[in-house]
Amino acid sequence: MKSYLQMTADERVAELATQKKLYEREKSMGYNLDMSRGKPDATQLNLSMDMLQQDPYTLIYSRKGTDVRNYGELAGVDEAKELFAGVLGVQPENIIMGGQSSLCLMYDCVMWAFVFGVYGGSKPWSQTEKPKFLCPCPGYDRHFRITETFGFELISVPMTAEGPDMDVVRQYAESDPAVKGIWCVPKYSNPTGCTYSDAVVEAFAALKPAADDFRIFWDNAYIVHGFRDRDDELMNIFEACKKYGSEDMVYEFMSTSKVTFSGAGVAAFAASRNNIRFITKQMSVQTLGYNKINQLRHVHYFRTPDGIRKHMRKQANYLRPKFDITLAALKSGLEEAEIGSWTNPNGGYFISYDGLPGTAKRCVSLCLDAGVRLTDAGAAFPYGIDPEDKNIRIAPSYPATAELYKSMTVFCICQKIAALETLLGQTPEQLPLAPAAEPAGE
Amino acid sequence: MKSYLQMTADERVAELATQKKLYEREKSMGYNLDMSRGKPDATQLNLSMDMLQQDPYTLIYSRKGTDVRNYGELAGVDEAKELFAGVLGVQPENIIMGGQSSLCLMYDCVMWAFVFGVYGGSKPWSQTEKPKFLCPCPGYDRHFRITETFGFELISVPMTAEGPDMDVVRQYAESDPAVKGIWCVPKYSNPTGCTYSDAVVEAFAALKPAADDFRIFWDNAYIVHGFRDRDDELMNIFEACKKYGSEDMVYEFMSTSKVTFSGAGVAAFAASRNNIRFITKQMSVQTLGYNKINQLRHVHYFRTPDGIRKHMRKQANYLRPKFDITLAALKSGLEEAEIGSWTNPNGGYFISYDGLPGTAKRCVSLCLDAGVRLTDAGAAFPYGIDPEDKNIRIAPSYPATAELYKSMTVFCICQKIAALETLLGQTPEQLPLAPAAEPAGE
Repeated sequence: MKSYLQMTADERVAELATQKKLYEREKSMGYNLDMSRGKPDATQLNLSMDMLQQDPYTLIYSRKGTDVRNYGELAGVDEAKELFAGVLGVQPENIIMGGQSSLCLMYDCVMWAFVFGVYGGSKPWSQTEKPKFLCPCPGYDRHFRITETFGFELISVPMTAEGPDMDVVRQYAESDPAVKGIWCVPKYSNPTGCTYSDAVVEAFAALKPAADDFRIFWDNAYIVHGFRDRDDELMNIFEACKKYGSEDMVYEFMSTSKVTFSGAGVAAFAASRNNIRFITKQMSVQTLGYNKINQLRHVHYFRTPDGIRKHMRKQANYLRPKFDITLAALKSGLEEAEIGSWTNPNGGYFISYDGLPGTAKRCVSLCLDAGVRLTDAGAAFPYGIDPEDKNIRIAPSYPATAELYKSMTVFCICQKIAALETLLGQTPEQLPLAPAAEPAGE
Repeated sequence: MKSYLQMTADERVAELATQKKLYEREKSMGYNLDMSRGKPDATQLNLSMDMLQQDPYTLIYSRKGTDVRNYGELAGVDEAKELFAGVLGVQPENIIMGGQSSLCLMYDCVMWAFVFGVYGGSKPWSQTEKPKFLCPCPGYDRHFRITETFGFELISVPMTAEGPDMDVVRQYAESDPAVKGIWCVPKYSNPTGCTYSDAVVEAFAALKPAADDFRIFWDNAYIVHGFRDRDDELMNIFEACKKYGSEDMVYEFMSTSKVTFSGAGVAAFAASRNNIRFITKQMSVQTLGYNKINQLRHVHYFRTPDGIRKHMRKQANYLRPKFDITLAALKSGLEEAEIGSWTNPNGGYFISYDGLPGTAKRCVSLCLDAGVRLTDAGAAFPYGIDPEDKNIRIAPSYPATAELYKSMTVFCICQKIAALETLLGQTPEQLPLAPAAEPAGE
């Protein structure tokens, strides 16, 4: 096979016919495969079952004697704060424990800022006529949707291999007081898998936003989710902020949704003392505290941050082969054709694939029609619109390995068809689309 | 002893001296007793430990095969919806399962309505210049605080023995479109213990609010919390609404915080299909769903609504004696003095005590100084202000029985001192107050 870019029109027509034949064969298999979302598979979840096997009578009292089955301890039990402070590299007093989802905490932080304002801010975000939010992209669709729902204008910031383009971030944040914040997944970013460089983290810490109520939403979702021998190192943003006195600018989040159980783990929020005090007060109107039995379950099971990291090595053994299969399929299927590029992350849950401009929607719809569900084309961009229509997020974690291989075979064929059609200047045929659904997962 | 109301001034002076002597003796005991909040005690919590003993491998799959350890099922697993629909007397499709707290769900419902509006409403609540909320009182302080935080004007509605004074409710709700809703604890109300009569429930269903976005917050917190042989019967509000086509006006809530574990149970929300559809959409931006493992734990443990009711009979055996001790102490300590009246509920967590006007704050501060913490005087009223300064909420559930008896002895002495001071026209002495704290619990 040679590069599609070098082919003559006739060669492309012939190759398209070949790929369409292959496509029809795959389609006839009646697949029902889902690689649309970053969900752990059952083998990963099984790794945490011992956590649920603990004698519940050992889970009654916190270290300081609180009966965790009863009300109280709004911000969480001390030992849980300590454990996640250790993971995040902050002090326990900088932690509030959340419920089953860090997304919920992020939503609440946006909502509180919107309705009531943030610590040090002069007024609620809602009182800014046209509030704006920075969205490094490709990025995480559920982040973008939160701020979109609250009526923010979403501003795209290009992602580089080192993180968001900080010139662009500075340009918007430092000139326009309507820019209220930015979404970040700083380690093994969703979906590119990149880890922000020290220079980028430093640049965030040094940011001088025009708004007095600007917040960096630092979603450290994949902080312990390396799956290769070499783990990326992310600079501690709170350490970086110390130099600039900018600690109040950062809200950090993590959860155990991809450590223990997705939607049945615990979440943690880290921030400056000023922010913690301010937010604890807002939280106290809403709840008497999150599930502390589940907090103790996690603490007694993992004991230390190293306990969590050790556990994640086991998960890595399941995830790594899935990424390797996916990467091998992409290489063997698409490299010579020269119609796309993809990331090769050391951790996280995604591979970001860029095809030829104008091919992503077509490819995703071809896949869906052949029984392989991918994340919607454009999902990683504000308003779900990829301006070049070329990016596809690949989520290898959930399908079983045999299914993953089939899915990737279909994907490569669909990429080729979409690329050839584009190169030939053809309008994509209107293949019937399967009805859209909203599969769950991050 | 005779009625304080019949005493001469000299007799009152003598009696005050006697009570102060008794007070000093109690004070010297160095008590540290807390009956400020409606918290279950450890023996009640122990009753649910078997729920946590279930083999976790039986808790992996929902009936329809969903792996509950993974993302998905935003509104909860079917069997959980079915269980709580059975308790609430609605259909499973009218249920959304929440997290560890119904208060959180109520807060979210207020917040969504405030920021985004409700189903059928023409605009968000926040766009009403001076929004108002009806607060039957004495009522639940945490309810009132939610709407206070969002800037609502809180309007007091007097409680009768049958529920809120519906003439007052109608008058406000049907004339003023700025009145957006009402807080209700319809069964074993917090703190009076009354259960709304059929006439009151009917009157709610028949309400024709001036606002097109009015909501009744029906917090059925004590729906299965009868502790006497005779359980109060509450008319099903959704049934009542059918006659008037007013189902969209009601948001109903419950949780297992006082069934299994406080802050580690599950909550449920019930509403019309229109509301469920509308709110599910808003929830989907915030979370991928609440802890489904905990949902299955509850379902497998209780199986049926009757399973829950049977479990609550065991709890009743712990609660009933505490109420009986408290009521006996009130009767023997205060009846002859004729300085107060109190409720005698068939369920719930509270006794509402009314002393002479102008005595509640004084009594609570005397108690606190003698080591007995009560709910703050005025807490059951909007803005924490009891216009007559006479109501005190008594929460007998948490102290051990021996402590409860001591607490009530102190309470009766303090009531007598406060009453005598008032009857003698004395300015209360400024006894030093212990520092205020915020004990947790409903």
